[in-house]
Amino acid sequence: MRLADLGERGLLAELERLGLVTGIEHDAAQLAGGVVVTQDALVEGVHFRLDWTSWRDLGYKAAAVNLSDLAASAAEPEALIVSLGLRPDTEVARVRELYEGLAEAGVPVRGGDLTTAERVYLSVTAIGRSQRVPGRAGARPGDRVVVTGPLGASAAGYRCLQDGVESPLAAAHLRPPLRLVEGRRLGAVASALLDISDGLAADAGRIAERSGCRLVLELERVPVAAGVAEVAERAGVSVWELAAGFGEDYELLATVPEAVEGCIEIGRCEAGEGAVLLLGGQPVALRGHEHFR
Amino acid sequence: MRLADLGERGLLAELERLGLVTGIEHDAAQLAGGVVVTQDALVEGVHFRLDWTSWRDLGYKAAAVNLSDLAASAAEPEALIVSLGLRPDTEVARVRELYEGLAEAGVPVRGGDLTTAERVYLSVTAIGRSQRVPGRAGARPGDRVVVTGPLGASAAGYRCLQDGVESPLAAAHLRPPLRLVEGRRLGAVASALLDISDGLAADAGRIAERSGCRLVLELERVPVAAGVAEVAERAGVSVWELAAGFGEDYELLATVPEAVEGCIEIGRCEAGEGAVLLLGGQPVALRGHEHFR
Repeated sequence: MRLADLGERGLLAELERLGLVTGIEHDAAQLAGGVVVTQDALVEGVHFRLDWTSWRDLGYKAAAVNLSDLAASAAEPEALIVSLGLRPDTEVARVRELYEGLAEAGVPVRGGDLTTAERVYLSVTAIGRSQRVPGRAGARPGDRVVVTGPLGASAAGYRCLQDGVESPLAAAHLRPPLRLVEGRRLGAVASALLDISDGLAADAGRIAERSGCRLVLELERVPVAAGVAEVAERAGVSVWELAAGFGEDYELLATVPEAVEGCIEIGRCEAGEGAVLLLGGQPVALRGHEHFR
Repeated sequence: MRLADLGERGLLAELERLGLVTGIEHDAAQLAGGVVVTQDALVEGVHFRLDWTSWRDLGYKAAAVNLSDLAASAAEPEALIVSLGLRPDTEVARVRELYEGLAEAGVPVRGGDLTTAERVYLSVTAIGRSQRVPGRAGARPGDRVVVTGPLGASAAGYRCLQDGVESPLAAAHLRPPLRLVEGRRLGAVASALLDISDGLAADAGRIAERSGCRLVLELERVPVAAGVAEVAERAGVSVWELAAGFGEDYELLATVPEAVEGCIEIGRCEAGEGAVLLLGGQPVALRGHEHFR
């Protein structure tokens, strides 16, 4: 059997069943003393294109996607470690811009290594400490489902980059939000908490699956970023495909027993299973991103 | 200016000068509470070839090179985090073998992520705790220079793989030693400690540079792994090129005020600068590995 047949989630389930890995689908590994660690790699041609992104934005994004996992762990970040693969003919000024972009995320780079590589890659580890990591398994019927900000800007920005259309939305794709303060606020009260990296539909499904309950979301209540509707119309896709199906929003999604200031309520937990997205009271189907399929 | 002109060490110096990174050439980042974290990436075609290595050996090596950095930090390992890039047509059985190889290193995989990639890559973060990290800056004139085991097997094994010659030395290249116990023993007493990844000559030079003293090593006292001399002769190179110039030995190199049980003394620290390798009392020149040049 090949990965394309099994898919990312099937592979994870198989590796977990064999006891070869634990916690691989969590936002961050939790260690003794409240230490949380997360790691993501960005590979040229897979996660970014150097004709779409500046080196500075690339550095910022590599830091931000990892810090988003710390935010989803309600952690205070302490350090980044950065491994970098570069072609020898790369201009030194570009590498400097990349590290300047990393620094703009506000967390010091405290180690790493440099390697010759044909394709540029960055692997970033972010380390922090958390008082309480809500995780994904604690949502209960009756909880409210909340998000920390508008969705869809990253997906719409990606479309604009793809179509060569200039738009301020491109910046939203290249410079995701940092919800560290909101993460720590939610960490104190949330029954489940994650960052939306694979799309609202897929990530709500993850909380439902791990918690053993159903998340019912009313799409009319989901905040959509400015300009997303226009991009959807031009592309001939539903606005919800961009705002709930694409991912890379890096807003936080949480279930909470009571309303939380600054968060937008978009639905409820019920007994049952799966994530149900309602539009005008009717369920709609949206698929998130899954690797290998 | 391009990376090829500046070289890895020149780039590091420039990034440190600008305050954009600290500690990037250390074996591991040190955080509050004795937490040490290290990260290394292995990229297909750069660090490994799938026609030379089995997936199991690849997993083991990815774990081992990171655990070696923890050994050099005198740390007790706690967890690995593994990010993996794979082609969708990869057989699931190969991925399972890779995780089995990671598990053989004895430290649990506690998180990570999976990504589609054209070239296989593994990025591994290793996390541990250390009572005392000697670092590279503490060597003093009068200290002894010691290593934890024989050198050159990895270099000789690499040559054998390159030349298509079957040899038990190939295993030494694919399965580096784990010196975690020795690392903690040295951590209590060493004035400087690192793992030999870029070759004895280059890594001794790093201790000398950071400590502001001279390391004088007598090559006759350096233990050379069995079979290395034969490979050197066949390849028409000096045995010292393999044992002190190539790297990837992953034995520990330390400076200590007194002899340490189980370690082999190969030289002394003196006032002065740089690493001097003596053969029959005469200095010899050997270069280690440096990226981008």
